[in-house]
Amino acid sequence: MISGKIDKTHGAGGSETSGLIEEIFREAFSNEYLDGLNDSAVVPGGNRLAVTTDSFVVRPVFFPGGDIGRLSVCGTVNDLLTSGATPYYLTAGFILEEGFDTDDLKRIVKSMAETAGEAGVKIITGDTKVIEPADPKEPGLIINTSGIGFVDSWLRIFPSEIKPGDSVILSGNLGDHHAAILSERLSVRNEIRSDAAPLTEMVSHLIKEDIDIHAMRDVTRGGLATILNEFSLTAGVRIRMEEIKIPVSQSVRAFCGLLGLDPLYMGNEGKCVFIIPEKDEERAVDIIRHSRYGENAVPIGRVIEGEACVTIRTAVGGERVVGPLYGEGLPRIC
Amino acid sequence: MISGKIDKTHGAGGSETSGLIEEIFREAFSNEYLDGLNDSAVVPGGNRLAVTTDSFVVRPVFFPGGDIGRLSVCGTVNDLLTSGATPYYLTAGFILEEGFDTDDLKRIVKSMAETAGEAGVKIITGDTKVIEPADPKEPGLIINTSGIGFVDSWLRIFPSEIKPGDSVILSGNLGDHHAAILSERLSVRNEIRSDAAPLTEMVSHLIKEDIDIHAMRDVTRGGLATILNEFSLTAGVRIRMEEIKIPVSQSVRAFCGLLGLDPLYMGNEGKCVFIIPEKDEERAVDIIRHSRYGENAVPIGRVIEGEACVTIRTAVGGERVVGPLYGEGLPRIC
Repeated sequence: MISGKIDKTHGAGGSETSGLIEEIFREAFSNEYLDGLNDSAVVPGGNRLAVTTDSFVVRPVFFPGGDIGRLSVCGTVNDLLTSGATPYYLTAGFILEEGFDTDDLKRIVKSMAETAGEAGVKIITGDTKVIEPADPKEPGLIINTSGIGFVDSWLRIFPSEIKPGDSVILSGNLGDHHAAILSERLSVRNEIRSDAAPLTEMVSHLIKEDIDIHAMRDVTRGGLATILNEFSLTAGVRIRMEEIKIPVSQSVRAFCGLLGLDPLYMGNEGKCVFIIPEKDEERAVDIIRHSRYGENAVPIGRVIEGEACVTIRTAVGGERVVGPLYGEGLPRIC
Repeated sequence: MISGKIDKTHGAGGSETSGLIEEIFREAFSNEYLDGLNDSAVVPGGNRLAVTTDSFVVRPVFFPGGDIGRLSVCGTVNDLLTSGATPYYLTAGFILEEGFDTDDLKRIVKSMAETAGEAGVKIITGDTKVIEPADPKEPGLIINTSGIGFVDSWLRIFPSEIKPGDSVILSGNLGDHHAAILSERLSVRNEIRSDAAPLTEMVSHLIKEDIDIHAMRDVTRGGLATILNEFSLTAGVRIRMEEIKIPVSQSVRAFCGLLGLDPLYMGNEGKCVFIIPEKDEERAVDIIRHSRYGENAVPIGRVIEGEACVTIRTAVGGERVVGPLYGEGLPRIC
């Protein structure tokens, strides 16, 4: 039976590694593909594959509203969804720091399994390594997940499809995840919880209802400003946001005011921005609001002709350019 | 232009991250899928997918015969091959320690690209994070690769297919990678070089020539002894090796003698063990020897009826049980 602390033997490839896999990972993730005995999982294929990978290094590994395990599933699932793919399979690569607690690992793995269930994906293969801890007093872990999905061949969801006149819709409040992590790091007590969530329902409803999505992206590292700048450059259009419409919760707004943070550059883990034709705007907002995690969806701006850039119209009527994120941001938020 | 040291901004998701991706990864890996602008790569699909993931944490990151980049491609490609799949696509997740040199990163990425070319795979999507270094004097990196391949539906390569009478064939000398890494760590001067290599040619030749492979596995962490024990348990058979036939180079043998290491438990990164029917033995050895990296292939033992266990017949005629790896092994060899 596995208990106590992780040590190097858990990553050496011998019997302790087998024990760890059997007792912790296979126990939690059990499915017909993972239960095979080869190093690769073999799964039924489809027509067009979507593939993505993401490593999760967030500290602390547990935080209000989630943990690194939930994050590692949401992040990769949302990357697949926003590529227009239906997520099917995840891989899980664990890089464990020596001294990490096996009970904490079990909690994280359980959280991954639950989130995978909610998102409708299966974790089909994995790998474990153990390394020295950066801080021996607080050993942590890193999780890499790669995702595989299938794409309906008629979908064309690319930033290059964005056209002047399109509406910019945000699926909910900005800044929750970033502010939750930072609050934990600073030991600030507040009500803020990470928004970490798989957006399977929201995106699949929009596609099923034939909303003509031109582009979509989950709003993670770099924040909304960075994504809209990428969109604007790729499509060669101007994107104008209305400051008054950007949804931010009272507690996050207060927290940001205190620290001088801008929600436009903060990372989220359960928010998506959609660019869609104006004619679909009302219907799309309605569909998102009736989907899980989309209750605060709102149109926040519009694509207009002009030099590629992103601007925001302030509450008092001014308009300023909003660049992409420069510099550090907060490291290890995901 | 990227130069100098990696810092946290390279992982923050802003413009410095884009610069890193553009100038280092996309430059080296460029292909029609990776060059898309979404977070996932979309690739043409097939009938049955093979999926695998592996994280590479080896220290030092450069060593005689290879580097962490070459390793990260070989390991994942070989996992796909030994599942009976033709490798097609790799993902690459980079976890960089702050302070790591960008020139070293370029070298590693170039090595990955070259090895991918040799192995016949494309790296189609990636991710970058930056973390604090465990040892600020020697910042390193971790690479996760996930692999996707397609499986011909008629192939049945599983340890459960192993039958009494089968021949055990090893594709070459044991211990080179493990001994090369350990020599570097101990600053021992010798001729030993890692065997890191993609086994695409060897495995595809065997399959094309209709060799009826019952099981195969690349001999990595845990060594040959651990793999044969897994095979033996899964198939419920005894596997007997002949000590005199196990191929080990003179220099590795000398190195092992000095340190009391057993090549049966040492990790390799370009060796494969095949279990095939006796009738195919001669032909299979011939095919492997005429394939790249297979020149020292040799039959090393046989599957026999009896209680599941692995034994070795020594040069003087004794026979002893060979268990799987227990305990630490050498950490961070892959």
